[in-house]
Amino acid sequence: MKPKLYVVKIGGNIIDNSEALRSFLTSFAALKGNKILLHGGGKIATQVAEKLGIPTEMVEGRRITDHAMLDVVTMVYGGLVNKNIVATLQSLNSNAIGLTGADAGLIRAHKRPVNDKVDPVIDYGFVGDIDAVNGKQLTAFLKNKLLPIIAPLTFDPTLGVMLNTNADTMASAVAVGLSEFYDVNLVYCFEKNGVLLDADNDDTVIPVLTPELYATCKTAGAIYKGMIPKLDNAFAALRNGVAEVTICHADQLGLALTKKTAGTKLTLG
Amino acid sequence: MKPKLYVVKIGGNIIDNSEALRSFLTSFAALKGNKILLHGGGKIATQVAEKLGIPTEMVEGRRITDHAMLDVVTMVYGGLVNKNIVATLQSLNSNAIGLTGADAGLIRAHKRPVNDKVDPVIDYGFVGDIDAVNGKQLTAFLKNKLLPIIAPLTFDPTLGVMLNTNADTMASAVAVGLSEFYDVNLVYCFEKNGVLLDADNDDTVIPVLTPELYATCKTAGAIYKGMIPKLDNAFAALRNGVAEVTICHADQLGLALTKKTAGTKLTLG
Repeated sequence: MKPKLYVVKIGGNIIDNSEALRSFLTSFAALKGNKILLHGGGKIATQVAEKLGIPTEMVEGRRITDHAMLDVVTMVYGGLVNKNIVATLQSLNSNAIGLTGADAGLIRAHKRPVNDKVDPVIDYGFVGDIDAVNGKQLTAFLKNKLLPIIAPLTFDPTLGVMLNTNADTMASAVAVGLSEFYDVNLVYCFEKNGVLLDADNDDTVIPVLTPELYATCKTAGAIYKGMIPKLDNAFAALRNGVAEVTICHADQLGLALTKKTAGTKLTLG
Repeated sequence: MKPKLYVVKIGGNIIDNSEALRSFLTSFAALKGNKILLHGGGKIATQVAEKLGIPTEMVEGRRITDHAMLDVVTMVYGGLVNKNIVATLQSLNSNAIGLTGADAGLIRAHKRPVNDKVDPVIDYGFVGDIDAVNGKQLTAFLKNKLLPIIAPLTFDPTLGVMLNTNADTMASAVAVGLSEFYDVNLVYCFEKNGVLLDADNDDTVIPVLTPELYATCKTAGAIYKGMIPKLDNAFAALRNGVAEVTICHADQLGLALTKKTAGTKLTLG
């Protein structure tokens, strides 16, 4: 039997709120067993960019990353956000190590090709699509009792440049990449109580979501917008070897994972 | 006999010049054997701070680091500078891993106490004085064929905050901390050819500097200003177990270390 591993992703809204973040990190530090944290960037990159006079442009919720914006996300995600999480976890006696995809060649990617099939043409700039996750190196860190904290940045090993990458996608890729070595529970933590039947009512958590129920909820319009790529990603992870996917509130990590009394569990049925 | 290790520090002026930095990293990647790189911050932090409207205040060449400035140096040193070095080295087939003192609890420090014995009182703010280097963890990385690239940031393990720390001092502390496990050559690379008898003439390199010659040069006024803390640091490292200290031009790393035909070698005589 493979050892268990939690691959936890913490979303941007929590990152932006230092009290909520600290509270989440305290629960995360208390979680026993092998674990990896992936964090989003939050609004800090947009705020820093604005102060530096660099305009933020989003297409379908994704940040267009020109050279100046790449510098900003490398600073903010890889430096400010990542290192403050590491320092907080260290003070909670967790042996955190902050990493990006470039460090130890962990997550290789390539620059997303320009989409010239649409008008106007979409060029995301320095955005990375993941090619490979170095599961052996992450396993070596875990065996060495280190707690990897991964920022949403990958790199192109040929060009030697950093690339901006969606944190949900990275979490999914890391979970799949480690499923060869571990029985992985991929956990998405955010500001809602789970996958909701009514997006405006936090008391309507769906405890178990199958692909069939997901399809029904989409048809009925109950699940929509940003939840769709997140859930598509999550079901894809299950189909690619991840043992379990949990979606829960950042405040309910312990309840969702150890007591199983909170959040939504995804299953292939 | 202990294995050999190079602890190399690359200074700010080289960091500021992307071509000089790339050229240095190419020589560094080609250097055979165990090695660790510590980098300075350069002027980028000052430039970013200025654009963000945060004033830079220096006392005796050291940056006063209030909370806003701590965010800037955490972003710039730990994010932008560190990750761009890592991505470049990865493209040169060096398995670089970017780290700060907080990562894996590598370099613990405490906030420098306010100096109230002077008038006006000096409060450096979030500046760290080093307490301990985790030589075992750095050794584990090296044995794992990883190349540590360390940014000039430490952390306070009790407060859980990052701290700004002088890169020369960090290089010296890392070299001393690893001298238990390795025969360490501490190498300071900068924009001059070595320790010069005449600071304005790059052809006046002192090939071997003993404490006696150093004292004579100071008395004669040939060595002054910023070189004095650097050399005091370097001689202290030799007295604390470091086998060799080399000071050389960033362009002459290979010549200084493998051919021994460039730079200044410090010896206790």
